[in-house]
Parts: sequence; C-alpha cells; structure tokens
Amino acid sequence: MEVTAQNFKAVLPMVEKAIDEAQFVAIDGEFTGLNLVKPVSALDLPLERYDALRESSRQFLLVQFGLCTFHYDSKKDLYTNRAFNFYVWPRPYTRNAPDLRFMCQTSSIDFLVKQDFDFNKLFKHGISYLKPEAEEKMKKAIEDRQITRKSNDTPNAQHIPIPEAMETYINEIKTKIQTFIQGNSNTLFLEKSNAFQRRLIYQVAREEFTGIFLESVAVGRDRVIKITKMDANEHAQKDLDRNQSEFDVLDEAVGFAKVIQKLSQSRKPVVGHNMFLDLCYTLNQFVCTLPESYSEFKHLANKTFPILVDTKTMATQYPFRDEIFNSSLEELKNTLMTAPFHMPDVKAVSVDSGYELESEKYHEAGYDAFITGLCFIAMSNHLGTLSKELGPKPRLMPDSPLLKPFFNKIHLMRIADIPYMNLAGEDISPNRDHVFHVTFPSEWKTSDLVNLFSAFGNVQVSWLNESSAYVSLYDPTSAKEVLSALNCSSVYNIMTYGQFKSFEASASLTGITPTLAQSKLSFSDSVSELKELTKKRSISPDPEPYKRSKSVTDDDTPVQTSKNFAESSDW
Amino acid sequence: MEVTAQNFKAVLPMVEKAIDEAQFVAIDGEFTGLNLVKPVSALDLPLERYDALRESSRQFLLVQFGLCTFHYDSKKDLYTNRAFNFYVWPRPYTRNAPDLRFMCQTSSIDFLVKQDFDFNKLFKHGISYLKPEAEEKMKKAIEDRQITRKSNDTPNAQHIPIPEAMETYINEIKTKIQTFIQGNSNTLFLEKSNAFQRRLIYQVAREEFTGIFLESVAVGRDRVIKITKMDANEHAQKDLDRNQSEFDVLDEAVGFAKVIQKLSQSRKPVVGHNMFLDLCYTLNQFVCTLPESYSEFKHLANKTFPILVDTKTMATQYPFRDEIFNSSLEELKNTLMTAPFHMPDVKAVSVDSGYELESEKYHEAGYDAFITGLCFIAMSNHLGTLSKELGPKPRLMPDSPLLKPFFNKIHLMRIADIPYMNLAGEDISPNRDHVFHVTFPSEWKTSDLVNLFSAFGNVQVSWLNESSAYVSLYDPTSAKEVLSALNCSSVYNIMTYGQFKSFEASASLTGITPTLAQSKLSFSDSVSELKELTKKRSISPDPEPYKRSKSVTDDDTPVQTSKNFAESSDW
Repeated sequence: MEVTAQNFKAVLPMVEKAIDEAQFVAIDGEFTGLNLVKPVSALDLPLERYDALRESSRQFLLVQFGLCTFHYDSKKDLYTNRAFNFYVWPRPYTRNAPDLRFMCQTSSIDFLVKQDFDFNKLFKHGISYLKPEAEEKMKKAIEDRQITRKSNDTPNAQHIPIPEAMETYINEIKTKIQTFIQGNSNTLFLEKSNAFQRRLIYQVAREEFTGIFLESVAVGRDRVIKITKMDANEHAQKDLDRNQSEFDVLDEAVGFAKVIQKLSQSRKPVVGHNMFLDLCYTLNQFVCTLPESYSEFKHLANKTFPILVDTKTMATQYPFRDEIFNSSLEELKNTLMTAPFHMPDVKAVSVDSGYELESEKYHEAGYDAFITGLCFIAMSNHLGTLSKELGPKPRLMPDSPLLKPFFNKIHLMRIADIPYMNLAGEDISPNRDHVFHVTFPSEWKTSDLVNLFSAFGNVQVSWLNESSAYVSLYDPTSAKEVLSALNCSSVYNIMTYGQFKSFEASASLTGITPTLAQSKLSFSDSVSELKELTKKRSISPDPEPYKRSKSVTDDDTPVQTSKNFAESSDW
Repeated sequence: MEVTAQNFKAVLPMVEKAIDEAQFVAIDGEFTGLNLVKPVSALDLPLERYDALRESSRQFLLVQFGLCTFHYDSKKDLYTNRAFNFYVWPRPYTRNAPDLRFMCQTSSIDFLVKQDFDFNKLFKHGISYLKPEAEEKMKKAIEDRQITRKSNDTPNAQHIPIPEAMETYINEIKTKIQTFIQGNSNTLFLEKSNAFQRRLIYQVAREEFTGIFLESVAVGRDRVIKITKMDANEHAQKDLDRNQSEFDVLDEAVGFAKVIQKLSQSRKPVVGHNMFLDLCYTLNQFVCTLPESYSEFKHLANKTFPILVDTKTMATQYPFRDEIFNSSLEELKNTLMTAPFHMPDVKAVSVDSGYELESEKYHEAGYDAFITGLCFIAMSNHLGTLSKELGPKPRLMPDSPLLKPFFNKIHLMRIADIPYMNLAGEDISPNRDHVFHVTFPSEWKTSDLVNLFSAFGNVQVSWLNESSAYVSLYDPTSAKEVLSALNCSSVYNIMTYGQFKSFEASASLTGITPTLAQSKLSFSDSVSELKELTKKRSISPDPEPYKRSKSVTDDDTPVQTSKNFAESSDW
C-alpha cells in the first residue's frame, strides 16, 4: 500500500495494528544518495565505515521507507504479509520551520528514476517527519508562545512605550477600530503591517478596547491583522481552538516518525538486507541525530531495535555461505527457491496491502522488504532442518535460539576480513600483520605497487587516495621482512598497518597529516617501464564501471585476496 | 517550447537561428536551491554577496533554463518572440563520468512543485551539459584512449608477462578462441572477467591470433569480451566507427552548454530580472567554475556576456524608481501596463514557440524570461518618450546610448546603500561612518540594541548572527560620539564599521576570530526589563515569515532606514 501525506492519518492505525500482530517486520529504504566522495577501502574498520556513513546520513535523505509485516498462523502453518510504502519528505511544517538543505547523488536519482520512482509525488505528497528531539523543542516553543499570548492578553501585561515616529500610525489604527466597533460589519482587516506594528496594535486593542478578537492572518504574501467582534466566551473558546490547532500542526509534523516509534516500542525483530544504510538513515532521520561516538551508536541502535537481523549477514556466514554464492537480494531469493532450500508461500493479507512473490517490483522499498522477509523465513526454516530436534516440518520462529548467532550483526560491504558489524558486542579484530600502508607519488598505478612488492609474491592493493594505498601480502609468512627490504627510499614510504593506525591516531590528536616528498620517480627501471606501458587509471582502455547505484552496491563482489589485482585496480 | 534530451538535437538549430535573429535575449533560471545557511545582511558588500553566491552555485543546480528571443520587425514596428524551456540535468554521460553530488533546499523544491515543475521529467529526460574545461578534458581522454588502443593493437606493443597464477586461465581462453576460429559460429562471448584478465586476453589475441575483433561489452551488470570473426578491412572500419562513436557521446554530453556558447558568441544583449543568481549559476554550470577572485568574476561575466541588463536594476533606478513602487516581476509587469507606461504587444512567432501576455505561466522559466523581455521593451520605450529627440513614436533598440547607463548593473537584493553590482567597473562605495558593529551576549534582542543606542535616536539593526549585528544611526550627525559614549562595557563591544572591516581583513589573514567574554547581562536595568518583556526571536507570538522561495525573494522589501525596527527584528 502506498502511503503519502494524503492518506497517512487514515492508514496509521492499520500500520500500528500490523506491527502489533507481526512475528517480525522487514524494512528497506530508498535514498537520495549513498556516499560522499570518500571511497571505501577493503581494509576499513567498522568504526571507519560508521564515520563515513554518519556523514552521508547527515547530508542525504531517506525518501521512501518500505515496511512489510509478517504474520504466522500456526494452525495453517502459513505466513501472510502486509506491506506499506511510505513516501517521506521534510516538508516545512510551519512558516517558521527550518528550511532544510540536503544532498542528492546523481547516480542515486538516476537509479530511482529508472525504477519509476515518482519524485513529483514525493515532493508534493511526501509525509512529514520530526525526530523526538525536534518535536520536544517545537512543543516547548508552542507552550511558551501560548503562555506569552495569554500574558499579553491580560490587562496588566507589560506595556511597550509607543515610539514617537509610530504615534500617528497608531492613532489612525485606533480610529479605525473605534469606527469598526460602532459600525455594522463583523470583521475588519487592517492594512499590511510589520511585526513590530502588529505588536503595538495588539497592545492598543488589549488596553483600550473590549469585545474584539485580533488574529494575524496571511493575505497573499502579506501578514495582516483580522479583527472580529466577539464576546468574552467566544473569545475564550477561540483561544482554546487556536491553542489546540497549534498542537494539531505539531502532531501532523511528527508524521512518519510515529511509525518508527511504534516499531521501536514493539520490540519486534526487524529484518533488513544489507541494512547498514537503512539502519543509519532511519535512526538519523526519525530517531536521533547519529552520535559521533561509535559505541554510542551501537547503544542507540540496540536501544531502538533490540533485535536486528541482516539477511546478507546470514547468507554470507556459516552454514549458508557454502550454498549461497551471490548474496544480492534478487539472487539470494532465486537461490532460496531451489533445493536444498524451500521458499515459503506468503500471501498478501489483502489485495491493497501486501505483496506476493509474483509482484516483481524490485527497488520499490516495500517489495524489497517483502523479499527480504521471505529470504529470512526460508533461511530460518533451513536452519531448522539442520537441527535434528525439530521434527519433519521445522518452523523456526524469529525468537528461536538457533537464530541468535545472527542477531545484531550488520553486514559490512567489501571488507576482506570483517564481514559484519556487531551491534551487541565487540567487533571482530582480525590480524593485519601482512598489511602495509604505502605513500607514493600520485602518478603511481597498481602495477607500480605490485612490482615494488614482487619479491614477496602476490599482493592485493587497496587504494586509499591518489598517493596512498594498503598493500596486503597474499602469503603472510614473509611479512616481517618487508620493512627491512623495501623501506629505504625517498620516493615512497612504507609502514606496517599497526604503525599507520597509531600514526593516524596521534595525527588526529595533533592535527598533523602525513606528507610525502614529491621527488621524481627514479628508483627502479622496471617500474619506469611499467609506467610507460600503463596509463592513468581513468583512461585505461576498459576501466571497470564505477559502482554507483544501490542495486550494484548490493552486488557485493567479494574482495579477491587470491589474485594479483583487485577489481578496484588500475586495469 | 519545452526542450528535453528527447528533442534537443532537433531543436538546437532552431534555437541558434532564434538567437542569431534576435535584437536581444531574455533569460531566467530555476534552481534546486538559492542560498546556504549564511544569512545576507543589509550592509553586505558586493564582494561578500559574490562569495556567498559562489558557494551556493557550487552546491545547488540550475535545473531549468528559460530563453526568450525578441525579434523586431521595423516595418510593422512590432516585436515577436520565440521561447524555449530547457530541462537541464547532469546525467552521467558515460559509466566513468563523475557521479555528481548536489544540494537541494527544501523550500525551493516545494516552490517548484507548487508551480507544477515536473521533476520526473527533469530526472528522466533532462539535457546533459559539460563545461568547456570538462569537455576539453574528456576529449583529451578519448584521444589518449584511442592512441593507447591503437598501440596495443600493433604487433610490437608492450608485452605484459602473464603471472603464474593466471597461466591455466589464459591457456583455457586460448583453446576457446582456437576452437571458435575453426568453428562455424561468427561471434563468441567469453565468460565474465576482471579488468586485468581482459587486458591479458587482448594481449593474447593480438599476439597469437588474426582475423578476429575483440570488444568489451556489458552483459547485465558484467563486462565480458565479445569476439567477432573479421578481416583486416572490416577491423579497420570497426575501429573508425568505435572512435567516432566515442566523440559522438562527448558531443551529446556537451549538450545544453552549446546553447550558452551560442548565446555568448552572439554578443547579443542578455536581459534578466534580478539576475544575479541566474548569471552566477549559468556561468558556473555551463561556462567555467566561478573564480575565487571577485574581479576575475567580473571579467568572466563581461567576457561571456558583454551586455547584461537587469530589469530590476532599471526599475529601481532613476527615472523609473519614482513611478515603480514594487519591482517584483509580476508587479513590475502590472505597473508597466498602466500609464505613463505602455506595454508592447509581442506575439509568439508560432504556437509552439513563444508566449503571449495572456499565457500567465509565472515561474516557468521561459515565461518569466518572456515577461522580463516585455518589461525591458516597455521601460526602454518609456526612456525614449523622455528623450525629446525621438519623435512621437519612440522605439529604443537595445543598443541605444540612452540604455547604456543600465548595462552590466546587476541588482543586489536588500542592500540599503548599494543597489547594484557594476560588472563593468568599480562598485559604489557608500559612506558608512554612521554604522557600528556590535557584539553582545546571544540572549540579546533588537530591543536591547535599540535601547543601548537610544541616546542617538532611531537606529536600524542588521543582524549578522546570534551575537553580533550592525547598528546604523538614522541621524548620522552624532556618529562621532558613539564610541566615547558607549564603549565602556565588558558585556558588549562596539567598533566603527571601518574598524570592523580592517579587523576582519587582518583576522582572515591570521586566523583569529572575534570572541566575546560571555559575562552575565547586568549593565542596564532598562535593558533587563526589556529582556523580561520580550521573548526569543523564534518564538515571538507573531514572527515574520522566513523569506524562502524565489517569488518571495524577488519581493525585495526595501530596507527601512527610517524606522526603529527592521523587519528582521524581534517582533
């Protein structure tokens, strides 16, 4: 079901009921962009990935949120699903709301447009949202405003002296109000005025007249004061109505954040596929600005969603990794439809809420969430078949202890030795003694590095920027000899991975950044020859396509540690 | 006429002809955003406005360019017009093109959506563009690539040794090619390979086989090598075709930039309304990244468009300023339709190219350009009537010397004493001896400042940020006494405008920023009282609407120097 500002209020109770009745919930997001310029490295640490994504989530927007609830009927041994596609958009909720700036990534927009994502609908009818922190602030502002208004309206309110230059103006206004009160008309619109003039007019009305009600209204682009004849009772009622309507506006502004609040309060397992982006953007946009500290982030994620399951982590870990060769969502689904797996038949609860396998609407957030949920059920049940105790028709519910090893482990894309981030504990800390950090002249190519390390056998090069890279030895046994053999050049600099990390940590404290003497490349004939042969990365005859869109991002080609040349290389 | 990638190629000659045949051209742009967070001040210098706008134009995008050409038929004494609405969008032109990130401002998107701007059309069918600098770079890259390909294809090309780990793989490929050559099939697709593998395969093919042609093609998300049987002649032709097609892609990528190149080469007068944004975004996106130096910017603007006319500058300067009270485009048009002005009847050249006054499509870029052109003609002719020498039916052509005073003077929004930027010479440098820079605790309101300066009469407060503002005396005669009378506080700090500007210039060299001792506010009972009375700006009972959209931006409420309280004030 498509949910926009036009039907959100009506649909919300249905969504809340669906969450309440679900065994688990699958989610998926669509974004205006995925990553800022900094490229990821195959040797990033989870903390570094978090830092990069935190920055992205501050700048880009999640614009569609897919939510699919899965309901198990134990009598029929069948799941059904309800699905919702929310268009979300930070519409300024009042004329004083902050005018948000946000970033788009051309390839992401291009990708969404190709999936027929309707941007006009998003911008026209997207649902507003407000994080609890912003909601609180706005609530406080409304309360303060209402108190100020009330105190300004009492006879003993503070009096602002009328500036000399304003006296004629104010006297004219008084005459107008006097004439209006004596006349037959029931409403009077004063001429356009500025905010200070309006303040003085309110004061004059309060101090010198009774039986009238003033309000500031928009007429075209201008603010004018509208005066209505009104007795004290009507006046009081009007005040109450106005106060209530201000809170109603706030309620509408909170909008989609209510769905996430409901989801969090339900404590239900939340399943996503390759869900790190979805998680970060969702938290940042609807729950709380992402904290700087990585451990605080883990705490926030855990507090908000106590059970998170990433189907990509499942698919790439034991026991699935030996049977599943491509873990992109579409391929995963295809694999799980064939033996030894069994894809459950999950029907839609009703035609307008929920998907069926045949719907085939990839990259509609709700459909991707649906497929993710299916994959979760199929993999859960497969785990059940592996357990001898569960009998002939094993049905693993999401709270089964057999699933616990997969809880809160969020897949990390293309990191060779850290497959996931552990939200509920310490991350994996792999041995990187065979990894070296090298800085070099920016003309260097992968082939120069390969050549430099040729005495140590095959290597994998992970570029960091134009003039630095990590070089990993395929065979770690000779790692200890690298520094003494190679580190005698004024052209390049080599550190162990450990040295570099310490260096980086101290540099970030002192503000020092590594520099490299930009001397001419001359240390090796063979390298010079290779340089002749190879050309600049960007203009090689057949460069790899730049991985751009989410569909491609999910196509998580494993980093090849067994080859001379990584995909991100020169060729 | 609406122009997208779908009809651009066909329409371009028509556009070029229209420019060639025009007396002048009017332009207008629509943008994804107008300004970054820094607010403008009524005492900004043109240089400061340029700096702010340069930053904006680096981040936001111009997404629709309206161009309206005006053609004068002297026999009929009539103008006609041709109008074009270009949707422009930085579509990645090849899979290696940079993946641009850009900024949107929520209010700008909201504004465009309300004018029925079609974002889906923009993202799907917007016309590509490439600045000359990027075009040159890409051209060079194509040439280099073609040279590399050619040299790799010659028998004596450099040989890359085949790594041991690859030998089996390469031998299998050789066998496949051998079998293919002996077989009946005319094409062979090799399996998915990485870039280095492909490089080696090309080498093997070159060194060991003849009569085949290799190319790398996309199959789904993968790159594979396609091999075709082909004799030397066909091979050569295929090479030529491929080379040509690479330049064709470049030509398409340059896209809309050609229209701006044509406009520049034509040296025709280019007319806009409140055109500073239009000018900066146009130059930055289609001509050249805006230079850091303000004087270089002036030079760039002048070189690109030798005659720029801003109808808002005309409308707000002598002799028009006494007859025109609201210079927003719509109001200006209305004023020019009544005596003493005369609005010309400008017909569309044809139904599908050009507007008429009745079209009423405000904020469609082409229509706004059309109305701008009409206003220019009406004001030009009015100038003619003021000149005694021109007879009863004065028609002022755009090159008339009477119009020269308005050339290259670009309107500056809401600067009290510098109405325009002079692109062809020195800017106005007004006396600001009656202006003071004040820093103070962030709790202060306009009223605190007004009170502080009360001994010097009425003032105007121009906020810079939460804790600093310019205060201008309405009556400059006592300016000399301000510092000695007021500058004796540890709570606030006062400098003359001149002192502050020198301080700022030296601070920007040394990196020092002004600080303020955050002591408690205590220096004046009356100020404390006022503080009690007034509330924080943002939650005042009836704050001014935040000026957000372009329509409002153009509604250039003059800065009121004659009042106690500026619009941007506390009330």
